[in-house]
Amino acid sequence: MKSKIKNNIFANRGMELEKSIINSNKFYLEQSIAYIYKKHTPIKVISVEKNQINKAFFSSSSTLDFVGVYKGKYIEFEAKSTRQTSSFPIKNILKHQFDDMQIIQHFLGICFLIIEFSTLNKYFLCPYEKIKDYINISKRKSIKYEWFIKNCGEINQSYYPRLNYLAEVDKFFDL
Amino acid sequence: MKSKIKNNIFANRGMELEKSIINSNKFYLEQSIAYIYKKHTPIKVISVEKNQINKAFFSSSSTLDFVGVYKGKYIEFEAKSTRQTSSFPIKNILKHQFDDMQIIQHFLGICFLIIEFSTLNKYFLCPYEKIKDYINISKRKSIKYEWFIKNCGEINQSYYPRLNYLAEVDKFFDL
Repeated sequence: MKSKIKNNIFANRGMELEKSIINSNKFYLEQSIAYIYKKHTPIKVISVEKNQINKAFFSSSSTLDFVGVYKGKYIEFEAKSTRQTSSFPIKNILKHQFDDMQIIQHFLGICFLIIEFSTLNKYFLCPYEKIKDYINISKRKSIKYEWFIKNCGEINQSYYPRLNYLAEVDKFFDL
Repeated sequence: MKSKIKNNIFANRGMELEKSIINSNKFYLEQSIAYIYKKHTPIKVISVEKNQINKAFFSSSSTLDFVGVYKGKYIEFEAKSTRQTSSFPIKNILKHQFDDMQIIQHFLGICFLIIEFSTLNKYFLCPYEKIKDYINISKRKSIKYEWFIKNCGEINQSYYPRLNYLAEVDKFFDL
């Protein structure tokens, strides 16, 4: 039961961040700034009857959360949240997510993470390149909060857009 | 029954074209040329028990078939097939697909259609812009085969990649 409650908290936490990003993407589309959307969850359909799926499974998510086009460029990113206040655990980013980010970067796409420190109410845009360099050099299992302050872009919050993350994209990427 | 058979033929036809594009995308990824993938089908999940989905519906597809990154640019396209030999029926392209293409183009993404004339074994890359101009000027319900010859890029076929459509992207778009 305890783990169920814990899972719900995790899910809700992720949901709030996701909602904030969807809110921001709506703003970007309305203002004709960018078209960024959440990917559909990959689902393996086993059986269908009269247009209703009655057996299916969630496939392992093979890609990142959000994708889109901004000034003609391909954007893809993942959003992660932590309740911790002093550091972000690297294990929150899955192996296949690192692989995906590596591929996007290789093809010159814009690739980053949005990291939420929910207890602190702080959001950062972290270019994949920076996270990769950190992991290649450091042997630590988490990244200190101060590292985000120094190396990433703090995302401005407002009512609408909730998270103006494209302002940070402009600072970090050559567009 | 007749309509069921007809639907199957339509589905298979689309599947062959889809397979050819997936084959080509595999080649592009292996050769480090581009990362282009098929979007997941949007599915609305109603009920889940023990990780198994037991009630769900296919949502109306709100986007195009394929998306990806090529030389840093956002690519999105739709693949359509016709058995006709003299023209392509415009109704094969759905209203929301035109809307999506308009959005992608507005944000400077690379947006096009791959049209297969299956009986003729011919494939064309048609930039969205060209189709749009045609439809805005012409009142016809179909586009003549000759129009594709004049205005689009014929896609080279081989064993691998089956359809070298990026060669035509290079010709039509400023990359």
